[in-house]
Amino acid sequence: VLIKPETLQRVGAFKFRGAYNRLSRLSGAQRAGGVVAFSSGNHAQGVALAARLLGMPALIVMPVDAPKVKVEATRAYGAEVRFYDRGKDDREALAAAAGAERGAVVVPAFDDPLIIAGQGTAGLEIAAQAKALGAPIDVLLAPVGGGGLMSGVSLAMAALSPATKLYGVEPDGFDDTRRSLEAGERRGAPPAPRSLCDALESPMPGKLTFPILRDHLAGVFTVTDAEIAEAMRHAFETLKLVVEPGGVVPLAALLAGKIDLAGRTAAIILSGGNVDADLFARVIRGEM
Amino acid sequence: VLIKPETLQRVGAFKFRGAYNRLSRLSGAQRAGGVVAFSSGNHAQGVALAARLLGMPALIVMPVDAPKVKVEATRAYGAEVRFYDRGKDDREALAAAAGAERGAVVVPAFDDPLIIAGQGTAGLEIAAQAKALGAPIDVLLAPVGGGGLMSGVSLAMAALSPATKLYGVEPDGFDDTRRSLEAGERRGAPPAPRSLCDALESPMPGKLTFPILRDHLAGVFTVTDAEIAEAMRHAFETLKLVVEPGGVVPLAALLAGKIDLAGRTAAIILSGGNVDADLFARVIRGEM
Repeated sequence: VLIKPETLQRVGAFKFRGAYNRLSRLSGAQRAGGVVAFSSGNHAQGVALAARLLGMPALIVMPVDAPKVKVEATRAYGAEVRFYDRGKDDREALAAAAGAERGAVVVPAFDDPLIIAGQGTAGLEIAAQAKALGAPIDVLLAPVGGGGLMSGVSLAMAALSPATKLYGVEPDGFDDTRRSLEAGERRGAPPAPRSLCDALESPMPGKLTFPILRDHLAGVFTVTDAEIAEAMRHAFETLKLVVEPGGVVPLAALLAGKIDLAGRTAAIILSGGNVDADLFARVIRGEM
Repeated sequence: VLIKPETLQRVGAFKFRGAYNRLSRLSGAQRAGGVVAFSSGNHAQGVALAARLLGMPALIVMPVDAPKVKVEATRAYGAEVRFYDRGKDDREALAAAAGAERGAVVVPAFDDPLIIAGQGTAGLEIAAQAKALGAPIDVLLAPVGGGGLMSGVSLAMAALSPATKLYGVEPDGFDDTRRSLEAGERRGAPPAPRSLCDALESPMPGKLTFPILRDHLAGVFTVTDAEIAEAMRHAFETLKLVVEPGGVVPLAALLAGKIDLAGRTAAIILSGGNVDADLFARVIRGEM
């Protein structure tokens, strides 16, 4: 099992890849207007840091119950944070209004060609690193929220390692991509209580990401909160890596035996490590 | 600041390097007799795994209050564990008796040329990796217990990066190396209560390691338990790495401002990540 620890990426998650790629392509005039984004946290941090590096003001619309560590880090990268209520507010409308008011570019979290291409650089690296190790990858598993990472990585692997079978992993109750692939069209999952994975609670695959996932994925696995917590403990005890719930789902799928690995080389992306200390403490103590 | 995360090494600590180097040089006849070692935990795991890879039986003498995660991992690598009482038993005598009784080689934790050379491979890698980055290292900080890692790394850096200034870091109350360097001869520290750093509570520098440290170190910093806990929280929140108290002391020294880094490139070795979940949970929650 080969591990791509995007927990060690800037901002502690793969999201910096796409955000920087998107913002660095803006013209000077566009940069001056700044950027607006909405995100539960990792895209927020990616946009905030990319904006700071490019000298742009940034406003991030975040849910009021986002992990504290993500809100604090987003502010620490210099962005202004505006909160919304998940139950009541339309975050896309809030972001669009803020963008119009400021003359700022609104950067979506996943459904954008430059975001997808940026996330796909993780796939370019995985293919090159596996080649350097002389270890062709039979199966690759990555988390799926809106599908930006999975679709970018799928395009990279299709070009560089076409024999690799690609699997998405979603948390139980937020299996909109699994349902969409079964239906052959974009579907939402029925309303569910919150998952441990704040990063993967997207309502539906994107208009751009869905056809890419449909054309490249061999399947989607789902994992329970208990399997996710077990995988976080394994990452803590054995890998010595801090992985957030939404980032650990591929490891959870392997440990739960969702796929037969006998004689095969697997690659998994641990996509982020931004988790509140209190939640992490409860998980490693076995309290959840 | 360049980080060498030995937390990601096999057994979660640099100790595998020296243990494997030492055991792999034994003759076939010596291997058949097996190995005995004494250790609070990381050397234990390094010897246990190296022995298993080489097909040797292993007995490890450990303090009864060693971190549970270290005891369990040592057993999981196939070693037999025998406990001793820190207050009452002479662990070296216990290990020597067990070795004689079994016809097994006793492998010390640090005061051995092949152990020192093995730990020094971390220094070879640091020098090569800094060269590949085009980032000559001005200062290097590493934890010092008995001095096996620090002396091996010192020899490697003296050969490959002689301009680098080398500093050891010890926990308050276990500053036997600092005292020995000041005195110009091997000294113990006065009896102290336990430190957070079970891995660094060595009574005195080794006969072999002391002269190497004396000839190469620019100095030794000491850090408090509070500074150590703060550094563990920083590693959790920002680096997304699980680092044990004894492994995080160089980061603690940097964060506590023990050395001026303005305009300089520093390398630090985070030497291990084997920490009980309960202690880690208390530290990241800010309870200690």
